Amino acid sequence: MSEIPRSPGTRDSGLAVFRDPASVAVVGASASPAKWGYWLARGALTGRDRRVVHLVTRGGGEILGHPTAASLDDLPGVPELVAFCVPASEVPGVVGQALALGVRGLLGITTGVPDEPALAARVAAAGARMIGPGSLGLYDAESSLQIAWGDFPPGHLAVVSQSGQVGSEIALLAQRAGLGISRFVSVGSQLDVSTADLLEDLVDHPMTRAVGVYLESFQHGRRIFDAIGALRAAGRPVILLAVGSSEAGARAARSHTSALTSPMELVDAACRAAGALRVDTPSALVDVAACLLGGGLPAGPRVGIVSDSGGQGALAADRASRRGIRVPELSAPLAAELAAFLPAGAATANPVDLAGAGERDLGTYREAAVGLLRSGEVDSVLLSGYFGRYGLDSPALAEAEQRVAAELAEAARASGRPLLLHSMGADGDTTRVLRDAGVPVFPTIDAATDALAGAVALRAHPGRPLAAAEESVAPPAGGGYWPARALLRGAGIAFPAARPVADARQVADAARELRAPYVLKAGWLEHKSEAGGVRIGLTDGPSAVRAFTDMYARLGDGPYVLEEQDVRPDVIEVIVGGRRDAHLGPMVTVGAGGTEAELHRDTVTECAPVDREQAHAMLSALRCAPLLAGWRGRPAVDTESLAAAVVGVSRLIARLSGDGTELEINPLRAGADGAIAVDALLVTRRDDHAPDTDPDTQGES
Amino acid sequence: MSEIPRSPGTRDSGLAVFRDPASVAVVGASASPAKWGYWLARGALTGRDRRVVHLVTRGGGEILGHPTAASLDDLPGVPELVAFCVPASEVPGVVGQALALGVRGLLGITTGVPDEPALAARVAAAGARMIGPGSLGLYDAESSLQIAWGDFPPGHLAVVSQSGQVGSEIALLAQRAGLGISRFVSVGSQLDVSTADLLEDLVDHPMTRAVGVYLESFQHGRRIFDAIGALRAAGRPVILLAVGSSEAGARAARSHTSALTSPMELVDAACRAAGALRVDTPSALVDVAACLLGGGLPAGPRVGIVSDSGGQGALAADRASRRGIRVPELSAPLAAELAAFLPAGAATANPVDLAGAGERDLGTYREAAVGLLRSGEVDSVLLSGYFGRYGLDSPALAEAEQRVAAELAEAARASGRPLLLHSMGADGDTTRVLRDAGVPVFPTIDAATDALAGAVALRAHPGRPLAAAEESVAPPAGGGYWPARALLRGAGIAFPAARPVADARQVADAARELRAPYVLKAGWLEHKSEAGGVRIGLTDGPSAVRAFTDMYARLGDGPYVLEEQDVRPDVIEVIVGGRRDAHLGPMVTVGAGGTEAELHRDTVTECAPVDREQAHAMLSALRCAPLLAGWRGRPAVDTESLAAAVVGVSRLIARLSGDGTELEINPLRAGADGAIAVDALLVTRRDDHAPDTDPDTQGES
Repeated sequence: MSEIPRSPGTRDSGLAVFRDPASVAVVGASASPAKWGYWLARGALTGRDRRVVHLVTRGGGEILGHPTAASLDDLPGVPELVAFCVPASEVPGVVGQALALGVRGLLGITTGVPDEPALAARVAAAGARMIGPGSLGLYDAESSLQIAWGDFPPGHLAVVSQSGQVGSEIALLAQRAGLGISRFVSVGSQLDVSTADLLEDLVDHPMTRAVGVYLESFQHGRRIFDAIGALRAAGRPVILLAVGSSEAGARAARSHTSALTSPMELVDAACRAAGALRVDTPSALVDVAACLLGGGLPAGPRVGIVSDSGGQGALAADRASRRGIRVPELSAPLAAELAAFLPAGAATANPVDLAGAGERDLGTYREAAVGLLRSGEVDSVLLSGYFGRYGLDSPALAEAEQRVAAELAEAARASGRPLLLHSMGADGDTTRVLRDAGVPVFPTIDAATDALAGAVALRAHPGRPLAAAEESVAPPAGGGYWPARALLRGAGIAFPAARPVADARQVADAARELRAPYVLKAGWLEHKSEAGGVRIGLTDGPSAVRAFTDMYARLGDGPYVLEEQDVRPDVIEVIVGGRRDAHLGPMVTVGAGGTEAELHRDTVTECAPVDREQAHAMLSALRCAPLLAGWRGRPAVDTESLAAAVVGVSRLIARLSGDGTELEINPLRAGADGAIAVDALLVTRRDDHAPDTDPDTQGES
Repeated sequence: MSEIPRSPGTRDSGLAVFRDPASVAVVGASASPAKWGYWLARGALTGRDRRVVHLVTRGGGEILGHPTAASLDDLPGVPELVAFCVPASEVPGVVGQALALGVRGLLGITTGVPDEPALAARVAAAGARMIGPGSLGLYDAESSLQIAWGDFPPGHLAVVSQSGQVGSEIALLAQRAGLGISRFVSVGSQLDVSTADLLEDLVDHPMTRAVGVYLESFQHGRRIFDAIGALRAAGRPVILLAVGSSEAGARAARSHTSALTSPMELVDAACRAAGALRVDTPSALVDVAACLLGGGLPAGPRVGIVSDSGGQGALAADRASRRGIRVPELSAPLAAELAAFLPAGAATANPVDLAGAGERDLGTYREAAVGLLRSGEVDSVLLSGYFGRYGLDSPALAEAEQRVAAELAEAARASGRPLLLHSMGADGDTTRVLRDAGVPVFPTIDAATDALAGAVALRAHPGRPLAAAEESVAPPAGGGYWPARALLRGAGIAFPAARPVADARQVADAARELRAPYVLKAGWLEHKSEAGGVRIGLTDGPSAVRAFTDMYARLGDGPYVLEEQDVRPDVIEVIVGGRRDAHLGPMVTVGAGGTEAELHRDTVTECAPVDREQAHAMLSALRCAPLLAGWRGRPAVDTESLAAAVVGVSRLIARLSGDGTELEINPLRAGADGAIAVDALLVTRRDDHAPDTDPDTQGES
């Protein structure tokens, strides 16, 4: 697997040979339609106007009317790209031949190739590049390059898939939805060319306007998401299909590729940072793609719904609302404008019910849609119901319906707002008119609303640059409370005054300098309460000394801490944590704290670092956000100081080196007058330990 | 609207005329395919082998080769059923003519009929029955009765819809999914025949094996759900599509029919009690119907997933898990049995990945599916991927694939467990073989998993008889704490000892009889805390008297109560409430209590009454259930006493009369030694007030 990051867009990646090779050879071509070699040969020949196509098969003879050679060595010239689908045992020989000839690109279809690392090393040594083996193939609409099972109608959706068949299903469903494919790559076992390489290579791919990616491994995840962010910035948003959200799914992903999966909440954070959308199934991916490639991204979450059936309009409104789309009540003037050309019983609040008027005059569909598109009160319009089927049921209406369809598409284009159609006749001529003119058409309410919801979510997360770490700092050795506290105080996070204490005498001295009540902590323990390593409510020096003597007798030597206890009333407990994921990089999490935190699991995670605004957005996204805003008459807490703590932890974790390093404040007690961290933890992985730094062991107040 | 409940299955409902009339007349027939009158005439004529069909049109002449009459009066005989689609102004005349002739059934297609109540009265006076007006039509596969827009392939799904077009879309999507229709009724404005009538009439409909119902009004909801329960008991489960789950959806439903909607949680409770499943869209309804009509209900929630693609299997496992289906890891012996015929890289844990073996030998699909179906380790099997498409891509494989399909269907039948297929070739001959043999086939992973999840949920809720109220008791007048307390104590729910008090002297006396600390309450207030109507922690008699004097000065006369305060540690606060919904009847709710109850909204609602087992199930379904079981080392609370309180409240609310009556315990404090209600409320609607009963005003302990 490639370990050398390459910059997007550079032409020295050696991947150009997979875009538009001057010549290709298919080794293992076959005349039998039941064999892969047939499909690869048939596909390759579709590009013969543009490039030299060689077919190699031991059997000789013609395939699809094209001459064949018995071996790569017998070809009249050296092909730039060699695709092979030969028995696994023959692969080393074929690859060796190809490299000896000076072939620049290899596309391996064969699965189960022996000694893959040796093969990869030979390819690398020769300065060539290889996709696969175990790839389902490659298609590029720009250059009529098709070396894959199946056919691909040309279009604007690129598909990059870590499973050939999932990629195939995406392409198939896209075709059913009337979408074409700009590029298809099944990455196979990624011996050389990786998913990240192929995504980087797509950034300047002219025909591609949206990208569907299937991932089941997040190795090199940060580089993959950097490429995804670059694609979004280049106007080619990525819709990501990932597995592993369930125990069984993760089990399958592991068994399939032996790769580690990352928890989905981290993947979702990476998607938001890169401006991508995660979906759950191939059909969800294709539905969102249809929306992007048709109407584009709506400017906001408000939709106007028009239907010739009150029932369908209401169902669409219910489902849209559940998917986070707003269905705002229309203003009185707009409702009156609509009512002017609708029958008395028509609903004009949103959803708009044409109440039979559409059937009497198809132009009513246009009038209602135009009214909403132009109003400024909604960001998109969803038309749901019979439109698209009139011409199918009553051929006499076909022409009029198609004329209205063209007018609808033009109105949407002129308004700059997406128009989507759910039609009971999604496969007819009318809907073809709409799709050709950029109006996506869906056969179900589910698909239409979910597609729009995906587009709205993409719009809400345009991607953000992740600030490069200022410097990579090794975490202090040993972890525990005092080093964590020192790090966090350095980031501006408030703690109660405290003193490190090692014996009863130091405890007594510290108690004199600090304000009671005190807390005594065994600072090196991760789970202090469970281990009897924390005592609160120590009201004076003698009780602090007694607590120390008792704790020392149980736990022995260690970096103990005596601290002032935060006894402010009306505080809300919050958890703020950071961790470095081995694949996806530094992450920051904020969550509801308190004794029931594990029950409520109310957390929000983003890629670190975050800025003040992002930190506030994280706090607002917590289910417990109303508690922070002042619950049942209590004062609102100082969310500014909470946000500052989130920002501080996010910057620290982004700077700390070492996969698996964790930093946590639990709890951070937030009141109206600020947030105070009263416990904290630093966890480093043993094998990442840097030489000791010198934690601040001086007391402060 | 019919106000007279009729029993299901009785033949005196007058509805037989809508099942198999000996003769029908279509008034307003037309020769133009763009007009409704054409479709009604065309449909009616499909049944002319079975019954006399008359076409009536003012224009005269022939329609579809059939003679017409100018008026009902000109017909040679009296039709049993008259369908009309004439201009609204002509409806009273046509109905009058029909009734004068002695017609027994009317099907009104026309919308916007003037003075509907007068029309309904005339129909009722004549002893006839009418569906509509505003109906989209009627279809019955048993009797080849088709008077509707569109065509219906015969089959086993009945559709009853309060929106003609939503019903149409269900029928259309069913057809696309390879399902046929047994009966279709668009109920229209329900002037006479109601949704409940039509559901009751379906209970003994032989061809119907599942029912899809679209509801946007819950008037007579209890009768509707009684019919739905009777359908389930008769082996005809109902899948219910309802609108109003969102503000916009409810707005649309109101504007469409001016009917009240009920909160969805109550509808869901009614569905569980009746053994029905609620879905959100027509396509979800059809997917679940395909599962029921194909494989039937699985015996439990465990699914085995087989795919020729690790990616598709993992995606299916993820989505199934999210939908509440279990994807258990297979036992070592079963995994070994599968591994014996699969290649080395195949996953056998569940999902099972054939790893290319299916492609090399189609019989492998059968082997893997049979292994799982027979194992007893799963309740259903989902096959996902390319199967169904081999024959489409390689015609040479078609025959072999169809043979394996037939074997798969037979294996499923023999095992008694449902087999479902997600196929990339869902429209081919192979999948037709499967569907014909009872294996449902779905074009997407989404549809397959959601259909299975629906079937699993239906199986989990077989319906339960709702005990008829022992007696209908008027709630005591005035509501408030003391009457509620008396009612609840009568139902066996524990309260602290208490005394009603009216002046300072009674407070002092009561304090002597009760154990401190005390609580003083202004018992008549609904929101005591907010109004300063509750004081806790009164440690002795004098402090209780002072609290009373202060409260009395602010709130004046009223039924005050002095009560012992429950000061047990480690209690969990729970809310238990009952209410009588005007449409859906008595309901009982249990929820997490405490100061953050409104934030967490952690409640479960069921139709009342419930028994002990159901009450325990409600408690277990709360998100806060782990708190009850003993959280972080605290003792488990006495859930038996909590369940008893839920049962008690559910029985009380089922007995109390009056729409809108509410009864609530908040909080019910549950500890290891039992649950004690420390506040309660009874709310009655003014217009339902019965004569005063005499609440128990004696103190108890």
